[in-house]
Amino acid sequence: MSKVIRVTVWNENRHEKNPNMPTGQIYPEGMHGAIANYLNTLEGVKAGTATLDEPEHGLTDDVLANTDVLTWWGHGAHHEVQDEIVDKVWRKVVFDGMGLIVLHSGHFSKIFRRLMGTSCDLKWREANEKERIWILEPGHPIADGLPEQFELEHEEMYGERFDIPAPDDLVMVSWFKGGEVFRTGCCFHRGRGKIFYFRPGHETHPTYHDPNVLKVIGNAVKWTKPSEGYAVGYGNRKPLEEL
Amino acid sequence: MSKVIRVTVWNENRHEKNPNMPTGQIYPEGMHGAIANYLNTLEGVKAGTATLDEPEHGLTDDVLANTDVLTWWGHGAHHEVQDEIVDKVWRKVVFDGMGLIVLHSGHFSKIFRRLMGTSCDLKWREANEKERIWILEPGHPIADGLPEQFELEHEEMYGERFDIPAPDDLVMVSWFKGGEVFRTGCCFHRGRGKIFYFRPGHETHPTYHDPNVLKVIGNAVKWTKPSEGYAVGYGNRKPLEEL
Amino acid sequence: MSKVIRVTVWNENRHEKNPNMPTGQIYPEGMHGAIANYLNTLEGVKAGTATLDEPEHGLTDDVLANTDVLTWWGHGAHHEVQDEIVDKVWRKVVFDGMGLIVLHSGHFSKIFRRLMGTSCDLKWREANEKERIWILEPGHPIADGLPEQFELEHEEMYGERFDIPAPDDLVMVSWFKGGEVFRTGCCFHRGRGKIFYFRPGHETHPTYHDPNVLKVIGNAVKWTKPSEGYAVGYGNRKPLEEL
Amino acid sequence: MSKVIRVTVWNENRHEKNPNMPTGQIYPEGMHGAIANYLNTLEGVKAGTATLDEPEHGLTDDVLANTDVLTWWGHGAHHEVQDEIVDKVWRKVVFDGMGLIVLHSGHFSKIFRRLMGTSCDLKWREANEKERIWILEPGHPIADGLPEQFELEHEEMYGERFDIPAPDDLVMVSWFKGGEVFRTGCCFHRGRGKIFYFRPGHETHPTYHDPNVLKVIGNAVKWTKPSEGYAVGYGNRKPLEEL
Repeated sequence: MSKVIRVTVWNENRHEKNPNMPTGQIYPEGMHGAIANYLNTLEGVKAGTATLDEPEHGLTDDVLANTDVLTWWGHGAHHEVQDEIVDKVWRKVVFDGMGLIVLHSGHFSKIFRRLMGTSCDLKWREANEKERIWILEPGHPIADGLPEQFELEHEEMYGERFDIPAPDDLVMVSWFKGGEVFRTGCCFHRGRGKIFYFRPGHETHPTYHDPNVLKVIGNAVKWTKPSEGYAVGYGNRKPLEEL
Repeated sequence: MSKVIRVTVWNENRHEKNPNMPTGQIYPEGMHGAIANYLNTLEGVKAGTATLDEPEHGLTDDVLANTDVLTWWGHGAHHEVQDEIVDKVWRKVVFDGMGLIVLHSGHFSKIFRRLMGTSCDLKWREANEKERIWILEPGHPIADGLPEQFELEHEEMYGERFDIPAPDDLVMVSWFKGGEVFRTGCCFHRGRGKIFYFRPGHETHPTYHDPNVLKVIGNAVKWTKPSEGYAVGYGNRKPLEEL
Repeated sequence: MSKVIRVTVWNENRHEKNPNMPTGQIYPEGMHGAIANYLNTLEGVKAGTATLDEPEHGLTDDVLANTDVLTWWGHGAHHEVQDEIVDKVWRKVVFDGMGLIVLHSGHFSKIFRRLMGTSCDLKWREANEKERIWILEPGHPIADGLPEQFELEHEEMYGERFDIPAPDDLVMVSWFKGGEVFRTGCCFHRGRGKIFYFRPGHETHPTYHDPNVLKVIGNAVKWTKPSEGYAVGYGNRKPLEEL
Repeated sequence: MSKVIRVTVWNENRHEKNPNMPTGQIYPEGMHGAIANYLNTLEGVKAGTATLDEPEHGLTDDVLANTDVLTWWGHGAHHEVQDEIVDKVWRKVVFDGMGLIVLHSGHFSKIFRRLMGTSCDLKWREANEKERIWILEPGHPIADGLPEQFELEHEEMYGERFDIPAPDDLVMVSWFKGGEVFRTGCCFHRGRGKIFYFRPGHETHPTYHDPNVLKVIGNAVKWTKPSEGYAVGYGNRKPLEEL
């Protein structure tokens, strides 16, 4: 329980480098930097970063071996993520129980779609409209220290139908000014791993500077951290009782 | 409600052709034949068959377009199923709501693993031991007309940990003589589609002649049949309310 | 499958008789009459009514013995419903699998609270505001024939936190003009019985004349109808295997 | 996270005082004593006890106000537990998030039945037979440090159908020598509270001296401890947005 949770904050980090987009100005250290900086203020959490254009996308065997929880933000370059790396991440989640926090447009990442088994498609609109996030489950650990609801003045809209399997816990639902709702905070278990999908975080808004958004991510790091159950044995087995 | 449910019973159909195995003698028309023959005795159900070694594995566009529910039995040749066909089946389930019933060793089929997102691994033993299937949920439609529990005198054992996401409904759990338990009857929803995994059916036993086993498959056909909800629209959307 | 589903539409029927309220004018035959009239247009459904001020609230042993699905609307007089009748209804749901559809302010009825085990409390506002109901699960039988979303121009607002156990299927979520969201269409299984909670239906609005609302109730009647599983035996049992 | 979890171990404590039963010899300090002694060896946990025959069953307002997690063992005297105390415990779970761990024959306690909303009935047999507990979910916190399965040489049998709502997480399933299976480790959320039902613990066996059984209870204490979400407001609300 007292061990440090080692987080790797993964980011596509392309919008940040695009001079025609505001992302770099909003996040001088990248969205990954903003998130990692926050996580490093939490007791018992130690966060590093990794990005698409690093060798092996920054997710070398060594990095993955030292990651308890991985957060994932991608958008325009999902297809550039190598299948071999996706496969390694999938194995870490399913077989080793690495936690995975999928952020915003990461809904369409290869790793999330593979873990969900569905299309993960949704409706969207870039209109800088108001999002109001309702926390349905005050008794869930991811709700710790959060208000009943909070607003993000300007966000991209995501609307239902969100094509995911029904979440194991539905912790948050968003209301959008334009008339839509969305399952914004969703917990899943896949293999040994815990997965949390969290909707907000469009690259043109300062969402990852919002204290409530950051608190959600911090809580999710604690909730998704690996458990310490037995190592599963599969395959051919002798009987435990006389046949 | 009154429309006929069109079922395609898919089978690898290799053990049946192997003279060193008893499968062909137990099932002169193949396991697919035994299952389809039973389904064709049910009012409102019309079943055909398809097998691995037919062109396109018997799952042509035309066959799939006329299939409401697909049942799947495979074992030694999962890797021979073409990815393109798996992709078509996946789309039919997720986007069109085709029902899918995965039988026994089909747990390791490409289509089931893709829909689950996990390894779908398990423990097993071929020792002709007794399986006792307990039906946990008497109020579930798949339990219609079944006893509280029934025995299969000789079956292959499958034991937990079964690496699947927690089922949406857990309808049956098996007890094995050798000391194991298994989640034997599992309902899932993926996209618009309903999926039922049903454990029994080792190729060396007359399991698909058992009346309770057949009744489960018949009930599952009715439960997994496509619903008639709206066609989902995804992508960019105008606001419904004034922004 | 072909048997008629016998529905009893229960209503408090007090607002209808109050000359200071518009309910009686909106529903000359009562809300129960409007719902029962619609259900009687459906093939395979036969609906009657029962109300609070009838002897035994209209729910005599004979009526209950001939009811497959019970719908429940109550508001100001939950406390006047006799515990003995609640107990009978609870037994019919849990032990016999009678379907139960709880409407709107029925969230605070004795029978719903007893079946849920929680407070069933919520936020509310009577401001005649717009409700938009999103159907999250197009593959669910309760979504049959419904659009992706529909509006009710004037309704009472109900807002989260709705203090219920997480539904087994969350089929619909409402958006309210004033900023709230609500889990509006919720499926539960309790004992042998299926339960559907459906939010809309304030007594001052013509909600139960809305074709989409009525269609939801009709679909829910089909979904909650009793299944035909085994009769459960509880208590002391002999071993099935040698000890 | 670093706060001490205050546990109250509640026991009927009648079998212990019955000279015709072995319970008192197996548990010189009572089953409650055995459990509390174990919990007090855990870092960050402080356990006391309360029993039926104490004033207010040992569950005074002061005791409840200082309890984060309550464990409950009862058998022959469920009906002697005062409704007023049950109501207080229910409020603490649902409104304040107190954790509740229900042990063995506590399945028929007033508090568990009230929280579940079902009959909580089951099959049973006192034949000193072998129980084998399989832990289905190695990634669940309640599985921490436990083996894949463990045996209890002599236990009372509990068999399905166990009339509970489907658990939110099904962590353990038992195999019994005589042919039954049982959902032995079940997680529920009710209101703000987390509830864990754990099957073993018949009063004539030394079950609460078994290290695996004790470890499960210790893990469950950590899993059911209250979270720190917002205080829910219910009732009439002003709009957050302009109507």
